[in-house]
Amino acid sequence: MTTEVFGEDYTKALDAALAIEIFHNFSLVHDDIMDDAPLRRGKKTVHEKWDLNTGILSGDVMLIVAYRFFENYPAEKFRDLAKLFSKTAIEVCEGQQYDIDFETRNDVSESEYLKMITYKTAVLVGTAMKMGAIVAGTTEEQAQAIYDFGLNLGIAFQLKDDYLDAFGDPETFGKQVGGDIIENKKTYLYIKTIENLDDDRAEALKTLFNTTPEDPAEKIDSVKALMHNSGAVKLTEEAIEKYTKKAFEVLNTLDIPVHKKAVLQEFGEQLMGRTV
Amino acid sequence: MTTEVFGEDYTKALDAALAIEIFHNFSLVHDDIMDDAPLRRGKKTVHEKWDLNTGILSGDVMLIVAYRFFENYPAEKFRDLAKLFSKTAIEVCEGQQYDIDFETRNDVSESEYLKMITYKTAVLVGTAMKMGAIVAGTTEEQAQAIYDFGLNLGIAFQLKDDYLDAFGDPETFGKQVGGDIIENKKTYLYIKTIENLDDDRAEALKTLFNTTPEDPAEKIDSVKALMHNSGAVKLTEEAIEKYTKKAFEVLNTLDIPVHKKAVLQEFGEQLMGRTV
Repeated sequence: MTTEVFGEDYTKALDAALAIEIFHNFSLVHDDIMDDAPLRRGKKTVHEKWDLNTGILSGDVMLIVAYRFFENYPAEKFRDLAKLFSKTAIEVCEGQQYDIDFETRNDVSESEYLKMITYKTAVLVGTAMKMGAIVAGTTEEQAQAIYDFGLNLGIAFQLKDDYLDAFGDPETFGKQVGGDIIENKKTYLYIKTIENLDDDRAEALKTLFNTTPEDPAEKIDSVKALMHNSGAVKLTEEAIEKYTKKAFEVLNTLDIPVHKKAVLQEFGEQLMGRTV
Repeated sequence: MTTEVFGEDYTKALDAALAIEIFHNFSLVHDDIMDDAPLRRGKKTVHEKWDLNTGILSGDVMLIVAYRFFENYPAEKFRDLAKLFSKTAIEVCEGQQYDIDFETRNDVSESEYLKMITYKTAVLVGTAMKMGAIVAGTTEEQAQAIYDFGLNLGIAFQLKDDYLDAFGDPETFGKQVGGDIIENKKTYLYIKTIENLDDDRAEALKTLFNTTPEDPAEKIDSVKALMHNSGAVKLTEEAIEKYTKKAFEVLNTLDIPVHKKAVLQEFGEQLMGRTV
């Protein structure tokens, strides 16, 4: 899409897009090992279907295969794409390590959380969009602007994901609503709730998050009530709005025809307006 | 060394050399997880010192960091180096999978074994040498010849390693002599022994390899006797000789000054003459 926005045929971007897609799936294969996940997209995870070794090695090869897709570009573009890819791939791995570390920490700050979701999710959105710009041969400034658009949209997307996990419509959400609460995830919602509760109730929430409940549904309801009453829900909605706005502001600085901007604007609005 | 052999300053090859070294260590970190190894170079392995997640993620990042070292080369060389690297890295992963598969198979053939050590070990030697040629800017023919030199030397090296594991001098070998026999590894020596024993004794050896012995030293002695009597020791020595010779023959085709060839010849002889 961004390749087309910058006036080049989208088919030229397919190899770069495949690299991003294979990389994303590499990270899922290895993450599923780390999270000990039995299922992915309704099917057995790789390490479950075969074994740990196969999961590790398949992931390794997928990471390498991702790089190979850049081989179809001329040398200069190959280097630009591979450089951006390497930088981002390391950030995604770092984001995953933060995510793991946060599971056993009770003092994750808002800025730490934002850094984690930026690395784990948002940089890959920015990178995918910037690759489209590199393929189209834009200026570095344009390429950086579209990266920032994707980055901010990625942050907004992940915050929205956290929000929907707790407050989405069970009919349309697809995943179990309240899953993050049951897994004691230190999401933006949780951090904001802790920040805005008085000390006693904050301690009560922390205790709730460190124990396995007899009645999960009751725990979900209690935590959601605290999220509402503390004002954390409103603060999260405001944060989603803030990063979405930032993304659209960057969009306005782009030196491309108005009807091309509209494509990206619509994409962003669809992404943020989703209820699933 | 190969960069110098082709008339360029060796310092230009350092980034490529570091890429190979970091990649090699990436493969050890992930292999140690798969082999459940507690120690590496006398120190705790990464997944033992920290945990499984840290082992997987550190390895992933090391693989990416290896690619980053190529960023210091001009675009054309960057692409040539990264392409060669990706091809080889996939082969090394495939070699590791063969090695794992062979542990539970009793019918590994000579050609399968040679393919496994070629992928797991020899291609990386060939690639390291070819990278030196790429950095020096040789013709593709020269680069391919030095790759073949390294490849054949790598195969000879691994066969020698198998040989020394059983028949090395315990005083100088550094590792436990007979380690492969205790771990029931299907080495070249083992495969040649099975091939050259009569059916009854071959079955006896297979049984010996599928059971945990009460007296490991006795098992090592029995197996080593069979390796000798079957003629497998001699066949292995001949195979080592064959691949070393192949390497030196390739060397002769190289269009470089005689005193440069002597450097590579000496390197090969040192490697193959080693007793440790």
